Formats: sequence, structure tokens, C-alpha cells
Amino acid sequence: MQVYAIFVMEKKKKTPQDSAVVMTEIVLPNDTNTLNNLMGGKLMHWLDIAAAISAQRHSNRIVVTASVDNISFAEPIALGDVITIKAQVTRAFNSSMEVYLEVSAENIPAGKQKKTNRAFFTFVAVDQLGNPISVPEITPETAEEQELYAGALRRRQLRLLLAKRIKPDEAPELKSLFFDEK
Amino acid sequence: MQVYAIFVMEKKKKTPQDSAVVMTEIVLPNDTNTLNNLMGGKLMHWLDIAAAISAQRHSNRIVVTASVDNISFAEPIALGDVITIKAQVTRAFNSSMEVYLEVSAENIPAGKQKKTNRAFFTFVAVDQLGNPISVPEITPETAEEQELYAGALRRRQLRLLLAKRIKPDEAPELKSLFFDEK
Amino acid sequence: MQVYAIFVMEKKKKTPQDSAVVMTEIVLPNDTNTLNNLMGGKLMHWLDIAAAISAQRHSNRIVVTASVDNISFAEPIALGDVITIKAQVTRAFNSSMEVYLEVSAENIPAGKQKKTNRAFFTFVAVDQLGNPISVPEITPETAEEQELYAGALRRRQLRLLLAKRIKPDEAPELKSLFFDEK
Amino acid sequence: MQVYAIFVMEKKKKTPQDSAVVMTEIVLPNDTNTLNNLMGGKLMHWLDIAAAISAQRHSNRIVVTASVDNISFAEPIALGDVITIKAQVTRAFNSSMEVYLEVSAENIPAGKQKKTNRAFFTFVAVDQLGNPISVPEITPETAEEQELYAGALRRRQLRLLLAKRIKPDEAPELKSLFFDEK
Amino acid sequence: MQVYAIFVMEKKKKTPQDSAVVMTEIVLPNDTNTLNNLMGGKLMHWLDIAAAISAQRHSNRIVVTASVDNISFAEPIALGDVITIKAQVTRAFNSSMEVYLEVSAENIPAGKQKKTNRAFFTFVAVDQLGNPISVPEITPETAEEQELYAGALRRRQLRLLLAKRIKPDEAPELKSLFFDEK
Amino acid sequence: MQVYAIFVMEKKKKTPQDSAVVMTEIVLPNDTNTLNNLMGGKLMHWLDIAAAISAQRHSNRIVVTASVDNISFAEPIALGDVITIKAQVTRAFNSSMEVYLEVSAENIPAGKQKKTNRAFFTFVAVDQLGNPISVPEITPETAEEQELYAGALRRRQLRLLLAKRIKPDEAPELKSLFFDEK
Repeated sequence: MQVYAIFVMEKKKKTPQDSAVVMTEIVLPNDTNTLNNLMGGKLMHWLDIAAAISAQRHSNRIVVTASVDNISFAEPIALGDVITIKAQVTRAFNSSMEVYLEVSAENIPAGKQKKTNRAFFTFVAVDQLGNPISVPEITPETAEEQELYAGALRRRQLRLLLAKRIKPDEAPELKSLFFDEK
Repeated sequence: MQVYAIFVMEKKKKTPQDSAVVMTEIVLPNDTNTLNNLMGGKLMHWLDIAAAISAQRHSNRIVVTASVDNISFAEPIALGDVITIKAQVTRAFNSSMEVYLEVSAENIPAGKQKKTNRAFFTFVAVDQLGNPISVPEITPETAEEQELYAGALRRRQLRLLLAKRIKPDEAPELKSLFFDEK
Repeated sequence: MQVYAIFVMEKKKKTPQDSAVVMTEIVLPNDTNTLNNLMGGKLMHWLDIAAAISAQRHSNRIVVTASVDNISFAEPIALGDVITIKAQVTRAFNSSMEVYLEVSAENIPAGKQKKTNRAFFTFVAVDQLGNPISVPEITPETAEEQELYAGALRRRQLRLLLAKRIKPDEAPELKSLFFDEK
Repeated sequence: MQVYAIFVMEKKKKTPQDSAVVMTEIVLPNDTNTLNNLMGGKLMHWLDIAAAISAQRHSNRIVVTASVDNISFAEPIALGDVITIKAQVTRAFNSSMEVYLEVSAENIPAGKQKKTNRAFFTFVAVDQLGNPISVPEITPETAEEQELYAGALRRRQLRLLLAKRIKPDEAPELKSLFFDEK
Repeated sequence: MQVYAIFVMEKKKKTPQDSAVVMTEIVLPNDTNTLNNLMGGKLMHWLDIAAAISAQRHSNRIVVTASVDNISFAEPIALGDVITIKAQVTRAFNSSMEVYLEVSAENIPAGKQKKTNRAFFTFVAVDQLGNPISVPEITPETAEEQELYAGALRRRQLRLLLAKRIKPDEAPELKSLFFDEK
Repeated sequence: MQVYAIFVMEKKKKTPQDSAVVMTEIVLPNDTNTLNNLMGGKLMHWLDIAAAISAQRHSNRIVVTASVDNISFAEPIALGDVITIKAQVTRAFNSSMEVYLEVSAENIPAGKQKKTNRAFFTFVAVDQLGNPISVPEITPETAEEQELYAGALRRRQLRLLLAKRIKPDEAPELKSLFFDEK
């Protein structure tokens, strides 16, 4: 007897906030390496789940991971730390969505907190057979959301270029990313 | 080389919002029973972790689970559903803290959401040797927080009475809970 | 080629011993908190599984967790300890069953054993569609079983009262639990 | 504050029943192969834990797995089945102990039960540095325990012969096992 | 949209190398006992998976574990060690296959490696209903493969004898194993 | 009593083959999403472990994940598929190493195999305190290894540029990657 309330009105435009996800985890022994720090692969596993839920919230569809952008792991995260992952969709392209994630780690008894990672995952919405299906557009609202929305085009060109699916002269925004910035 | 920013000023009073935790999980195959619904025990495992983080946030201490109040599981939660757990401390008593949790489940592709559970966990703050240590008081702000704060006293009396650590005439607020309400 | 022996005669009355379950687990690193003690949530996860098997044994049905009574965690359980959980049904009510559980922990190389927890879980027997279905009555045999059987009525009234499904004057046995005992 | 009761009197002789362990598990999705049957390796993992607890109970020592005798998997065990593992020590040799295990599987809602496996594990008791340390002798009581005790010598000779640590003429009991039985 | 290349030509004879599997794992905290060494049961779990993949490669069928020969655990394997498991089929008998496994453990930062275990698992190829189905023959190539192929017959007789499915005089090769070798 | 053979001669130059790792896994139910396909995050978790072992083999040091390059997930991998991950170091830079990984997936009973992913992970060798420490140089041998070695410089510039740690005019090889290739 599954009693759910219907909560989705059909609307074609959604905001990044509509897809916001907060995920909290504790770093347990099996998540750590010899130095008792969180393994990068375990963090990516959590990021993928948080990003998938965010892309689901935007599209109200089954979603599959299409790609992950370069992630760096500059800060070690220790056993027992509390990890907070914040995810939201930045922009939609036909059937694909870019999700932005921010990770922070806290040693709460020590009163210490630090931002540790930023990541961009891309998901594709699919139907029950796994075929791509279109998703709603997104309307960024805050200044940060607008900047993420604008940058999504350049990041997409970089992904396509790295996958050799477009040529450099098809990526004018990307070129400016690398060679026109101060 | 662990570089954390110090973020805690010593303050004696905190608000429930200071201890707010949002945890998001997906129900995976190993979390489910023969009917493909989430097992109650797995949900309690997640609740315990979310509540522990909330109690850590309030006390900035190591915390251990002291007790769990009666929880009921009226709504089945299905494989693939997204679980959102919201936790915050309602009230502090010397070294113990009561944490209130609300659980909701979503089948996002189907556009369905439902509230599934409410729970109260009690944690004790301890030092490195496991001995109890005092925690800050709390100042409820919203109407809901004030109601949870007021009710915490009655729920504590019920816990102590069930544990046979007090006698009925030491629990006047509890008595009114059961026998004076309309 | 699944070759099972049929072992159940249709009988309407069963004893608590018919539903007895013994479960043994070792506390592993991922089950523990910062103090290397078993997390309360992991113990509840094991209790739920042991109780579900006990309720299955009584009813020969698929069962789902309906509720858990207040549990307290007065004794820490250490990494490497052996946990023994004993479960059996105390009483049946239409489609629901109350299961009583006792937990003990041993540090076997140190020759130490302690009783750590008592708990009551309630399960509902359901058919393949998840609809409640009636279960056999139970006949307590030992003095302890008879006491658990008698107390089950009061505990049930407390559950219904806490869930606001009955009013205090519908719970006469419960009232005596709180206010007439020496 | 770990409060354990001391329960071990120093005694040189123990019975098999002193080391009895009952372990109960449910077969979950991740334990199964493509046919939705329990993987043999997962069952051996559970057997090793049950046998280790039994050898701990006999020796009150840390124990390590020394060897496993031939195990056959003639009966498939299905997803959702309840597994019961019974273990007890059959005989002790200096620092090693042979543990006998019996496995049964139940589909409880279907009222079906079957014996699925028998196994012999050998454990060595060790001190904190991992060096072997002597264990108490055992006194079998029931007819079945006496038969297991007697057979332990032959099984030990087979193990040593297979490990090329003894020669056939050092294994007279084993020879009779193979070549003198009717 | 699952796009696989077909890579199997129907051939009746295969080599042991066709079924070769290399599996690499790191020993994590939850895999270890009180001495921080790998539990024997966890290693057997990994061996079963590696052997199953090897038997799948030989037969291109679903396979189920039929039996495991005596395994000894003479060498402790420590937390953080890298485990390498090499598996390949030694010989096929109608629907069953014997798989030989070698395990080595490395403490790579310390520059240390050791061989820790040898094991023989037997698998049966089955159809979708779980019924046995014939598998290709195997042609050993190297000297070691030929020796393993020859020994497979004796090991099979020992398995059948231990399972009381044949009598000693039906196992002439086995008799020579025990009583005619120098 | 840990008896390892010492196997490392101090040598300053190593080959990519010295760091080769093969890892084999089966996709189990808990690794999959609603479509019964492997979740991207789980695959990245396995890649991180395989790459860490490879970087350990090259450096004989503890290693930590520094970054992951863009990964795309064009091919779904199904429940029950066998995953093979091949990893080896392409080039070393002071204390960091780039590891190249190739993933293939097989449905063995169906006789189907496909290449599914390529990835580049970067690891840093550290001492027991987590401080970077220099690693041996590498000498590529095959044509493919030489191409991976040459490309490592451009990929490193892209990583540093994306991390805003260098400016475009410090990345001449990268510029040619994007804008001078045919």
C-alpha cells in the first residue's frame, strides 16, 4: 500500500534550486587508505550518487552518468570526518544535464571545517529502455548560478573536444577560456 | 598536512538550527526485503548516523547513542526511492541531547513524495575516555522548535519511567501527556 | 533443483519456542564509532533482521517491521566483541506479532560477558501484495514467557497511545503499568 | 566504562557444548549469483566467522584460520532463505582445534527446510604476537560428539598428508578410512 | 543500448590460458581480524569469485560452485597488503571444471612479496534452469598445465571418496597418490 | 610471523610494465542503478584502487589520489558482467605519477566483450607523515607506452591550467593539442 502525494506540476522551466541535494556521510574505516584518509574513489562514488539524485530532481527521469570532469584532491579527509556534499544542476542540454558539486569536510569535535573539492558530473535522462529523452530547461537565479550556467557551455566544449567529438574551431568559448582570460 | 579553518567560537547557547543535518540516500538492493521494500533496521542505521552528526554539531564532542524512542513504520519505502533525513537537536540535559528526525521518501521519476517516519534519538556527549561531559544549552527559535523543546521534558520522563529509573509521581508532565489531554 | 523437506503441519497454536532465533555476529571496524564501540544503529539493524526471522518462524509469512519500542544503550560494546541476539515472539494480535530480543556481548579472550540490551519489535504478516494477513495465536509455556505474554497488552496500548491511535481511557492496563505499580 | 562479568573459571577440560555457536543470516541480493542463489564464497565467509567464534569459546584465545577441509555445495540456497550455521569444536591438538559446522537453509514462508552443507575448519590459538599457544583438551559427551572426536584424528592425518607434512605410513588411521571400510 | 562485440567462435577444445583470470584486491579494515590480518573466510570469498569467472571463461556458461578442496592458511596476510589471485581451469569432466588458484600477498611500500595459498575449486556449468550442461574439453600446453591436468583425476577421486560417492577400489589413481609415492 | 621475500632492488628507472595491474570484478546487485547497469561512481571507486596499486608498484611508497581526468561513460555495463581493469604508470613527475587505465566488460555466457572506458588518474607518493617524496623515473618501451609518455606532458598542463595553477602561455604543448592537431 504505497501512498505517495503527487508533487510535480508539469512545468517546462525549473531553477537550479529545484534540483538541490545535500548529502552527509561519515568517513568509516573501510573508506580509508593506509594513512587513515578517505580514498578518492570512495568520494567519487558518493559524488556520483548525489549528482544522480540532483539530475533526477531536475528531470524527473531515470538518469545515467555520462561523464565526470577533472577532479583534484588537494585536501586529505580524515577517518571520522563528516562529509557534506552539495549538488545542483547548472544547465541542461537536450537530454543531458551538468551537475555542480561542492564537498566540505568537518572534524566536528575539533571545531574544524574545510572545503575540499569541486566537481562537475554530466548525466543523461533516459526512458525505461535506456534511450535518451529531453529534459526541461533551467533558469539560473543567483549570480553564482548565472556564472555556473554561462561556464557550462565552455566546459561542455572541453568535454566534446577531449572526446574528439568536435574540433577546436567548433569550440570558440573554450578557446577564450584558455587563451583570453587574464 | 591537514589544513582546517577553525570555525567554532566558544558560545554557551546554541540554536536547533546550528545542529541541523540533511542526509540523502538511495535505497539499494541489499537494503530491501523480499517485497523490495526498505528494511526497518537499515533505516534505523541511517537515522542513528544522522542523529549522531546532529548531536556532534550541537556539542562539538564525541557522542554515543543513549536511547531511541518508539518508532513506527507505517509507510513502505521502495527500492530506488530517495530517502531524505532531517535531524536537529531539540533540547539538551546536562550531558545528553534529544535529536528529532523526520524521514521522507521520493520516487522522483514518478513525481511522488511522502513523509514516512518521525523519530527521537538521545545521545550523550563523552570525552576521549567515554565519560559523560556537559553540553551547551539550546535556545529554540521557531514555534515548532519551541514545541519540540517543551515536549522533550515529557519524552524524557517517559524514557526514565520505562527504564525504571524514576517513579510515576516523579513524572508530572508525562502524566498530563497521557491523562489530561483531550 | 531446489529439494526442500516440507516441515510445517498446519497448526493454529504455536509456542514462543517455535519462533526462537539465535544470531551471532562479530563487531567489525566499519560497525564502530570514533571510540571503537559498536554504533547503536548497526545493532538495531541486526535486531531488525533477527526479529524478522523470528516473526517469520511464527507466522510462516512474509513480515514487515511495524514498530520498535524504546531501546536504551547503557553498555558500550567494543570492536572484536561477539554479539549474541536471542529473539522470540511473545504474543500475536490478528496480523501483528511482538518479538522480544535480548542482546549480550562477549570479549571471549578476556573471559568477559555482559547483557547489553533488551528490545521489543512489532512485525505485521503480509501477503505477496503487502496486505496484512492473520497469524496463529501463541501459547506461552514458561513463567518468563507468560509474563512477556501478559505485558504485551500494556506495551501495545502504549504504542497505540504514542501513535495517537487510541485515547488514555482505552488503555486501562497501561494506566496500571505507570500508576499502580509499587 | 566497560562493565563485564568474569565468566571463565580456569578449567583444563571443556566439552564440545561449551564451544557451541548458532549463527543465523538472511541471503541478501549481493550474496547471490546470476541464478539468484547464494554464492559458495559468501557461505564460506560466514562459516569462517562462526567457526572462529566457536574456537574462541573453546580456547578463550585469539584464533586464526589454519585450514578448511573439502566442502561440497550440492544444494542451491535461494535469495531470501534463512541460513542457520551450527558450529562446535570436535577435538583439540596442542594449539589447534577442529571445528565441525552444519548448515541448513529455510524458505520459511514456504515451510521448507533442508540441510545443505557440512564442513570442518581448523583454527590455531595464538597470543598477541601471533605465536601459537596451547589450548584445553576436550571431553566429548554424546555419541555424535564421540564419533566426531574419533574421526578428527583421521581427518588431521589427511590434512597433513595433503600438505606433504607427513608420509602415508605415518597415517595408519587414515589408511583404514580409505581402504578398510566396508 | 548494449553494444558488445561477439568474440567466441564455437570451438570444442580450449586451453587453460583461455580461462586465465587475474584478480587484485587490497586488504581493507573490515576484512581483518583482531590481529589486523586478513580473515580466511574473506579470502575464500574472493577465491570463489575468481574461480567462477575462470570457469565461466572456459565454458561460456553460468557456473555454480560444486566443491572446494582442502585449503591451508600458513601465511598471515596483513591490513593494506595487495592480494593477487591467479586462476585457470586445469581439466573438464562432462559438466564440471576444476579451477586452480594461486594467491600471493605484497606489502609494496616495504618491497615484500610472498606466496600464501594454493586452492582447487570445482564448478558445474548449468543452463538457465540450473541443470548441468556439458562443457568443452581442455588441452594443457605447458609442463605445469600438463601436471595439473594429470593430477586432476586423483583429486577428483579424493573428492568423490570423501563424499562417499565412490569406493576406494574405484580410485586407483588416488591410491597411488597416497601409498605409492616416495 | 610475517615471512616475506624481499624483491626490490634499488633501481632508479622502471618500466611501465613494472607497474602493471589487472583487476577483475563482477557487477553485483548493489553496484547497479534502476536500469540494472553499473553506477559510474562504483566504477570510479574500482579504478581508484587499481590505479593506487599501480602507483604503489612504481614508487614502492604509500600513494594518495591527486586528481582524476575527465572520464566518459558511453557504454552501459550490465549486472553480472565481468569487469577487467588494466592499469599502468605512463610517466613520473617528481613525486607524482600519471596512471593510465582501460576498462572492458564481458557478458561471458553470451560471448560478448566491449571496451567501455579509458581514464587517467594522478597519484602522489608520500611518506608516513603524508609529505610528498620523489619517485623513480620511467622508461617507456613499446610504441603505445611512448605515446602515453609523450601525451602525459600535455595532460599535465591541462590539469594545471584547469586548476588555475599555470597560465595558458606556460602550456605550449597543450596549446598544440587543441589547436594544431589535424
